[in-house]
Amino acid sequence: MLIFSVSEYKNRLTKTKESMEKQGIDVLLVTDPANMNYLTGFDAWSFYVHQLLIVIADEEEPIWVGRGIDASAAEITTWLKQESIIPYPDNYVQSTERHPMDFVANIIEEKGQANKTIAAEYDAYYFTAKNYIQLTKKLPNAKFVDGTSLVNWIRIVKSDGEIDLIKKAATIVTQTMYKGIEKINAGVRECDVVADIFHKQISGTDEFGGDYTSIVPLLPSGEKTSACHLTWTDEKYKEGDPVILELAGCHKRYHSPLARTLVIGQPTPEMEELADAAIEGIEAALDVIKPGTTCEQVELAWRKSIEKRGFEKESRIGYSTGLNYPPDWGEHTASLRPGDTTILQPNMVFHMIPGIWMDTYGIEISETFRVTENGCEVLADVERKLFIK
Amino acid sequence: MLIFSVSEYKNRLTKTKESMEKQGIDVLLVTDPANMNYLTGFDAWSFYVHQLLIVIADEEEPIWVGRGIDASAAEITTWLKQESIIPYPDNYVQSTERHPMDFVANIIEEKGQANKTIAAEYDAYYFTAKNYIQLTKKLPNAKFVDGTSLVNWIRIVKSDGEIDLIKKAATIVTQTMYKGIEKINAGVRECDVVADIFHKQISGTDEFGGDYTSIVPLLPSGEKTSACHLTWTDEKYKEGDPVILELAGCHKRYHSPLARTLVIGQPTPEMEELADAAIEGIEAALDVIKPGTTCEQVELAWRKSIEKRGFEKESRIGYSTGLNYPPDWGEHTASLRPGDTTILQPNMVFHMIPGIWMDTYGIEISETFRVTENGCEVLADVERKLFIK
Repeated sequence: MLIFSVSEYKNRLTKTKESMEKQGIDVLLVTDPANMNYLTGFDAWSFYVHQLLIVIADEEEPIWVGRGIDASAAEITTWLKQESIIPYPDNYVQSTERHPMDFVANIIEEKGQANKTIAAEYDAYYFTAKNYIQLTKKLPNAKFVDGTSLVNWIRIVKSDGEIDLIKKAATIVTQTMYKGIEKINAGVRECDVVADIFHKQISGTDEFGGDYTSIVPLLPSGEKTSACHLTWTDEKYKEGDPVILELAGCHKRYHSPLARTLVIGQPTPEMEELADAAIEGIEAALDVIKPGTTCEQVELAWRKSIEKRGFEKESRIGYSTGLNYPPDWGEHTASLRPGDTTILQPNMVFHMIPGIWMDTYGIEISETFRVTENGCEVLADVERKLFIK
Repeated sequence: MLIFSVSEYKNRLTKTKESMEKQGIDVLLVTDPANMNYLTGFDAWSFYVHQLLIVIADEEEPIWVGRGIDASAAEITTWLKQESIIPYPDNYVQSTERHPMDFVANIIEEKGQANKTIAAEYDAYYFTAKNYIQLTKKLPNAKFVDGTSLVNWIRIVKSDGEIDLIKKAATIVTQTMYKGIEKINAGVRECDVVADIFHKQISGTDEFGGDYTSIVPLLPSGEKTSACHLTWTDEKYKEGDPVILELAGCHKRYHSPLARTLVIGQPTPEMEELADAAIEGIEAALDVIKPGTTCEQVELAWRKSIEKRGFEKESRIGYSTGLNYPPDWGEHTASLRPGDTTILQPNMVFHMIPGIWMDTYGIEISETFRVTENGCEVLADVERKLFIK
């Protein structure tokens, strides 16, 4: 069930070890499910219990540690040898007496790493405070350091194989976005539109299917468009409602996100003005993208463009995306925002989503793009406009 | 948009403060999205950035702290006063220079709580090691203690209003399970079956719609039934495949999970024997449930029943469920397993899921039940058998 060749996984591991060496790290604990997948292929909905990879600089393979009943998923989905898959007993699960990190600490000790420099992803969702407290207690002679996003930064430049999966995801999101726009009408329940969106996201195309996206479809409508992360309700759309659709296609855990805004009926002049400003701004930003440009330069092009129309936006306008698991499809590395001097390179992929939210309404029009050799390539194929139903 | 009356939320807050007082806690930081929802109504897909409630024993209302663009979701979905909603600026998001917990520490300081006993949910998914490290650094005079599952334990006994939502979720899962079983056939792609399952989960019924479930549908087939948390692929079902369906209905974030197993074609005698053992075991366990029984007694009834057939199962056979967000619909409190002496009370709800996995095949047949005044009530209405297609 490996998605990539074993040599691609090993190449990723080599880069990880190089980064560890530069930072003086002997052991890296990888908890982020996307990073676990990136290095080994591991893919299962088991991140709701503690699991991680132990990457030891001096050992050839990472060690997978997880719950007993998930060891067979590791055997099926990874390139790891059987002896590199070490399950913990079920009485460690959500126990007040035993913690899985006690088990992990024992392995680190057995491998002779208890007095080394150990990095963990301190700010990753699934590396809890309790993990940190237990590990530092059980391994008092180790030096613990922050390894947040170490692997994420390696993920930022994609291989051609990864780009292929992201393009498949873009095909799915193109079809899904048109399906959602088609289904939204006055009198239709929000949940029924989202049901059709999910159906298209998961069934995908005749050639390839879709996976679950790391964020569910977000479709705020009416005054709720000012609150961008609300999910759907049982309510019916009403004439005059603006509706934001933010969703993604996903194929083999690789994402291509996309947002569009529509109005049921006649948009207000304010909405039209907002949409024109957003589209102009996106185009201005896309125009400056090429290898060598920095992330903050892309944001600046957007900001200068919308300022001409008298608009301001305070949050970042985009982020690196690709392989991921809930709750986020962002990679937590480069952001398109002031102060981010990351230099764009070919095969980086970003979701540029410069929403503008006013007090009682808002607009989101976005594109996911790949940096090419001399510019950028927009991945989905959905008209860039304010849709009117 | 409040789901329950303000007095129900305040009653939950009172119970939380009583539990805080018993444990000598002055300030509780609530990061678990289900606990945030439980106390305030807050409901948005914003848990991918740092957010929390600060519950101060001496203050009437909790304080919501989250990202600026999510403050309007807090205004729309909670009963909190505007001044209790404190957003942090966007340059705190995934920054290497600023951390949202610095912002939280300032609020705690301003509220005169910097030298008090502060509890946080140390082992909750979204309370990272970095949160802990920043808070303890910024508030050196506070005493930090573990508040994991403090609110979860209050959630374990449901109100009648909550039971009503869980029953609606059970109606959805009943219809969804039959839809999934109907669609699975040799030659059909797994992703197409899951697309129909999602559609039913989200569209719900004519009377009420469905929400996203905290775990996606899990449908391992063939030899993959030995790996219970694998998700679907683009592959086609084959004649002879066993297929496990583990899914839930969800209504306004309240879940009712359910699992069934089917075989495409003729089951092997081993599968039939396994199914008979599982069904007998579930029935034996359901028979002993009533207020006053302990969780471990329920597991013991199951274990004794399957032992008669020569089977053993090492993992827990169930857990408390209800309100939740990804990645888990379990509440992380009581488990049906040896050593858990939690006493069953009316309006507790459990998902009893005693899967048995052999080396190359497995079976899952489950029920979600409510403890009643004198026994239990099974919530979904799906035949308890090995389905044969």
